[in-house]
Amino acid sequence: MAPSERSDQDLSKSNFDVDYVIHYEIPPTATAEAEAAFIQLITALSSTGFTTEVRRGRKPSSLLIFTKLASPNLLRNQVYRARVQDWLYGVRPDAPAKITAEGESEESEPITPAERLRVAYLLITRPKDEGGAGVSPANVASSSPGVSPAYNRFVKSIFAPHDKAFNRTWLAKWTSKYQPDDNDLSEIRDQFGEKVALYFAFLREYSRFLLFPAAFGFAAWLLLGPYSWVYAVVNALWGVVFFEYWKVREEDLAVSWGVRGVGRIQHPRPQFKWEREGIDPVTGQVVKVYSPVKRFLRQLLQIPFAAACVVALGGVIVSCFAIEIFITEVYNGPFKQYLTFLPTIILTIFNPTFTALLTILAERLTELENYETQDAHMASFVQKIFVINFITSYLGIFLTAFVYVPFAKVLVPYLDIFQFTVQKFTPEGVALPTKSWEINPDRLTKQVIYFTVTAQIVNLAMEVIMPWAKRKAFKTVEKVQAERNNEKPIETQFKDDPQEAEFLERIRDEAELEEYDVTIDYREMVIQFGYLSLFSVVWPLTAISFIINNWIEARSDAVKIITHCQRPIPWRSDTIGPWLRSLGFLSWLGSITSSALVFLFHHHHGGAHIDDYSPWDIPFWALLLTIMFAEHVYLGVQIVVRGVLRKVVETPGLEKERAERFALRKMFERTGGVGGVEGGKASEQVGGEKITRESLEDDARRLAEVEGMPEKMFWLRQRNPDETIQVGRAMIAEFANHTRAKK
Amino acid sequence: MAPSERSDQDLSKSNFDVDYVIHYEIPPTATAEAEAAFIQLITALSSTGFTTEVRRGRKPSSLLIFTKLASPNLLRNQVYRARVQDWLYGVRPDAPAKITAEGESEESEPITPAERLRVAYLLITRPKDEGGAGVSPANVASSSPGVSPAYNRFVKSIFAPHDKAFNRTWLAKWTSKYQPDDNDLSEIRDQFGEKVALYFAFLREYSRFLLFPAAFGFAAWLLLGPYSWVYAVVNALWGVVFFEYWKVREEDLAVSWGVRGVGRIQHPRPQFKWEREGIDPVTGQVVKVYSPVKRFLRQLLQIPFAAACVVALGGVIVSCFAIEIFITEVYNGPFKQYLTFLPTIILTIFNPTFTALLTILAERLTELENYETQDAHMASFVQKIFVINFITSYLGIFLTAFVYVPFAKVLVPYLDIFQFTVQKFTPEGVALPTKSWEINPDRLTKQVIYFTVTAQIVNLAMEVIMPWAKRKAFKTVEKVQAERNNEKPIETQFKDDPQEAEFLERIRDEAELEEYDVTIDYREMVIQFGYLSLFSVVWPLTAISFIINNWIEARSDAVKIITHCQRPIPWRSDTIGPWLRSLGFLSWLGSITSSALVFLFHHHHGGAHIDDYSPWDIPFWALLLTIMFAEHVYLGVQIVVRGVLRKVVETPGLEKERAERFALRKMFERTGGVGGVEGGKASEQVGGEKITRESLEDDARRLAEVEGMPEKMFWLRQRNPDETIQVGRAMIAEFANHTRAKK
Repeated sequence: MAPSERSDQDLSKSNFDVDYVIHYEIPPTATAEAEAAFIQLITALSSTGFTTEVRRGRKPSSLLIFTKLASPNLLRNQVYRARVQDWLYGVRPDAPAKITAEGESEESEPITPAERLRVAYLLITRPKDEGGAGVSPANVASSSPGVSPAYNRFVKSIFAPHDKAFNRTWLAKWTSKYQPDDNDLSEIRDQFGEKVALYFAFLREYSRFLLFPAAFGFAAWLLLGPYSWVYAVVNALWGVVFFEYWKVREEDLAVSWGVRGVGRIQHPRPQFKWEREGIDPVTGQVVKVYSPVKRFLRQLLQIPFAAACVVALGGVIVSCFAIEIFITEVYNGPFKQYLTFLPTIILTIFNPTFTALLTILAERLTELENYETQDAHMASFVQKIFVINFITSYLGIFLTAFVYVPFAKVLVPYLDIFQFTVQKFTPEGVALPTKSWEINPDRLTKQVIYFTVTAQIVNLAMEVIMPWAKRKAFKTVEKVQAERNNEKPIETQFKDDPQEAEFLERIRDEAELEEYDVTIDYREMVIQFGYLSLFSVVWPLTAISFIINNWIEARSDAVKIITHCQRPIPWRSDTIGPWLRSLGFLSWLGSITSSALVFLFHHHHGGAHIDDYSPWDIPFWALLLTIMFAEHVYLGVQIVVRGVLRKVVETPGLEKERAERFALRKMFERTGGVGGVEGGKASEQVGGEKITRESLEDDARRLAEVEGMPEKMFWLRQRNPDETIQVGRAMIAEFANHTRAKK
Repeated sequence: MAPSERSDQDLSKSNFDVDYVIHYEIPPTATAEAEAAFIQLITALSSTGFTTEVRRGRKPSSLLIFTKLASPNLLRNQVYRARVQDWLYGVRPDAPAKITAEGESEESEPITPAERLRVAYLLITRPKDEGGAGVSPANVASSSPGVSPAYNRFVKSIFAPHDKAFNRTWLAKWTSKYQPDDNDLSEIRDQFGEKVALYFAFLREYSRFLLFPAAFGFAAWLLLGPYSWVYAVVNALWGVVFFEYWKVREEDLAVSWGVRGVGRIQHPRPQFKWEREGIDPVTGQVVKVYSPVKRFLRQLLQIPFAAACVVALGGVIVSCFAIEIFITEVYNGPFKQYLTFLPTIILTIFNPTFTALLTILAERLTELENYETQDAHMASFVQKIFVINFITSYLGIFLTAFVYVPFAKVLVPYLDIFQFTVQKFTPEGVALPTKSWEINPDRLTKQVIYFTVTAQIVNLAMEVIMPWAKRKAFKTVEKVQAERNNEKPIETQFKDDPQEAEFLERIRDEAELEEYDVTIDYREMVIQFGYLSLFSVVWPLTAISFIINNWIEARSDAVKIITHCQRPIPWRSDTIGPWLRSLGFLSWLGSITSSALVFLFHHHHGGAHIDDYSPWDIPFWALLLTIMFAEHVYLGVQIVVRGVLRKVVETPGLEKERAERFALRKMFERTGGVGGVEGGKASEQVGGEKITRESLEDDARRLAEVEGMPEKMFWLRQRNPDETIQVGRAMIAEFANHTRAKK
């Protein structure tokens, strides 16, 4: 197709070869500084090897700096360098082939978009003294003075434009099938990097595994009913198998994607504040040091933090719980129909607020712990948000199962405080209308269904609709404000070229999107796994709900990445990391809660009325024994499953690696290694040498030479194997004769 | 020193350069076959590259075949080959340097005696089609027909002669210091290989760690008394720290010895029987296959095996226990002074017999499981003997602590069966003299002291004296037999050369020694650790006894290797392997038994008389809760300790590796890697190019070329960074003006 024939259709999807866009914001109060810094920025970028173009942002106060790697040569060199680094860190088993200008090695190992973008991003963000441009957005740049270049103050974000064509195909493809296949994942990986691809791989494997508990759960629901110990055992076993399976699968994926051990290549956090510079005793390198004792002391703050979470979130939940029980099950007075919504309202207001506040607190705390690397920072942060989410997600059900039902009769009288309060608002003399107290037998089931169905739907809707609605609202507000202020758009000399206009508008939109954070998506799945592991014995249909949810989730996550987020920086990852520990923890805890639930509720379900239930009916030691038994069986089974799965699970990646290693060894044996054996082989020594005069003279000479050196003499008594054979045969013959003689 | 001046003193220690001695036995009934096979054997050895000499064995029916690697060249090549294999398996990080004839690389990486002997051993034992001589002793050679060469039937053993000079120095050195230092271990490693050295390293670290519980135990014994929860907590913590510390130390040692990951190079078991040959789908190699399902089914036999152990050994222990209690604490009749020895006699006769039988059974079972590799075989065997030893070592104490004391009052009446028996042997009418029943309060303590002091001493004595006594007795018996048969030594034409005589006599002695098995020594230490972890809360002085024991143990093990065993084949190892799991298990179980012991006995010790003790006094749930609490605290602490130790423990080996890797990276960056960055750097693009007519014409031409290609056009609007800067500044200026205008 000749260039002139290209339709606008093509252009609408084109990214104009842009690698990254730097969103540059000029504060109205500091235009001069921004201008000086802008010059530095462009100089830094171009001296690092980027071609630059600048365009106006949406608002006149912002610029969009477009960058692309200037020469294919630079790209090739940088990719080669990165691959060599991988090799030196043991991420890839063999040294990479040099990438020639003809792109020869690219044939066998092409540079993917993700690789290109990762290399470009590292080049943009790496500090200047390490050969980069030292750019990082203001919110992550180091605050230590003199470290971060001046321009970072004005950098709002760095992002790559979305690949519209790819995104459209991706969405179309995924909505038409039940599960993405390996090829689809591979495409994600080439586009968004291994970190994002690993999340989708996890989601796929998890959803696949859900089919079993869904089918079995349905059968159990029909035939066994809730609180069945058969279901509990099978469910716990499933949890172990999934957990151990994923560990194998994860490693296999890492190998086949060539990222195993990539965690060893750590990305330093620009925000890291060091106390002093020291010399690494091992490498002799200058390293930035932060006292580990100080960090440990700060890590101890996690304990009050966890306490704060329990108090704040737990407080809200417990209060709502108490109010709810009082209103629905004790109170019978005026406004009851409105008051029943009170707990929900409190929960809806306070829970997200507290969660948000605590998440910010968790971020601050992690910041305070001041980790050197991104991974360590993330692991610590994930640990904290897991605590928050554990409380918000499970505490309510824990309370119902292990406090409300067993101890309600003991605790409810204390609800008199509400009665007292109500009385105050009631005209004296009027009898307070209260119901007689009754335990709600279905409360636990209802709560589990709420969390595993309703909450999941709400969550999903929030995830997709909220960002869209927020953006709409934001735009409307801005527009209204502008109109009220009677602002006219600035008269500008910088008009968009019509051919670029569409692209620029798109980039201006993308500049306002949020960064994609895969942590949030993992969190959702891990918490979901927790419901299944901890409480699904209450309502065995749980997994069915999750299967449906996750089918939509995979697509809605895709939509989120495509439309609500900037294109993710294609980071690599060989593990779901800290979430793995959370999964293991929930699976283990599940063995305890499930056994306790079955033990406590099994007999009381169906037959006897739950109202007659009292914790004092069953011996406490029996409950403890049950839990202990279940837990230790769980731990034992885990060891067995781990051993068996390692052998059973198909691991194409690991097998490919093994084949490659084998080929390498074979090749070596055929070439370099064998020389030795040949050289030292029989041919040198063996030979049916006849005894001649010369050889006898030789012998005599040799013997004379070593006379008085018994160590040499020892080996010369039998000059060659034939002689050894002769002597040995003589000895055997002597013994044989002797044996015969005795007979 | 001129050769002629060499004294006999020197010769007495000399090994005459012998690498290996093959002990060849000729059955009187098959001298012809033995002769034919002998010829094959010598031919095989010499065509593999060995020089051979044959001498008479002690008895005329045995030959000693002396071998040494024929040429230094063969040795160098074989060592190089082995090092390359290490590299290909990832055991060593860098490719080995070629070993030149001048021994150039030997300078930096000399060939140790262990390396030489390992290479020679592999060459002797490797199958013929893999370039070896295919020799293996009859008791380990494959029984599959047509696989093992005919001569293996007559090979009794293959061993290297001891290095007398080294052994003497070793013993002298070790007896003069408290602990071997790194240098001493390194010498052991060069002499006997990493597997033996690792055992001594473990013993050293373990003994070092014992100092703390010894000191603390002594203080606890003085101040706190037995059953102190403070001691229990400190002791459990110590166990965890030691376990986690050893894992780090082990890895570090493996790295500094260059054997990390050596487990990947598996030695096939010659005894492995395959069902069919298949093609490895990954490597395309022909592999020998044994059905994993069959193996799994055979592995299931471990369950009845464990049951058999419990029944046999447990039966003996329980019977003796019952008899002992009856005799010492109930029975008061005739022969009491003799009868008290009855249980000890029964135990001394039956326990070792059953243990020996069960060990043979364990060996058979492991044989039956038919593993492909030595490591898998060993791991399975170790697991079984751990079960046996667990029962013989700990069951008695368990019974006393958790059955006898709590339930004695309930169980003792059943001892009436003895009373009944005694009655039968007593003339009717005579009143049976029995004491009134009383629980012996010190029984538990006495038992723990017996196992941790007396048994250790007996064990030690057995280990050193038994083999010596056995050999003496054996020799005497043979002599007596010979005398009785009036046998005269065979008149032989093969007299020892006087210079060799002493050496040959020594080798004839060594030929009769047993193989050294490091497993037995590990077992002892692991079982000892178990006493400390499980029961030392009963008697806090335990560790002091162990320290003394282990000081002697290290020396007596050295004596054992030197005088009671053939020189060990210098195998390599990077881990104490299956014993690690046993250590972890005992440490964990310790948290449970210690907490239970403290809970059960703490209050009853000292104050109240133990006789008043009844298990029904304390609520069972409280015991369970205590155990659960202790166990989970233990597991939590273990995670923390693991995390902290990894950072705290000094790891010279790992640090050296890190330094080397760093140097490699640095070197690469200075040479190969940097080219890319230079090439693509600013110099190409930046340059304050003045706008001239030519450049404008250039621009025009370039623009014309890309006309209608907006993607190219996009990047040509600003021809270089300077233009980008100009445009950007203009935009900023426009915005600044606008801002000023608004004000």
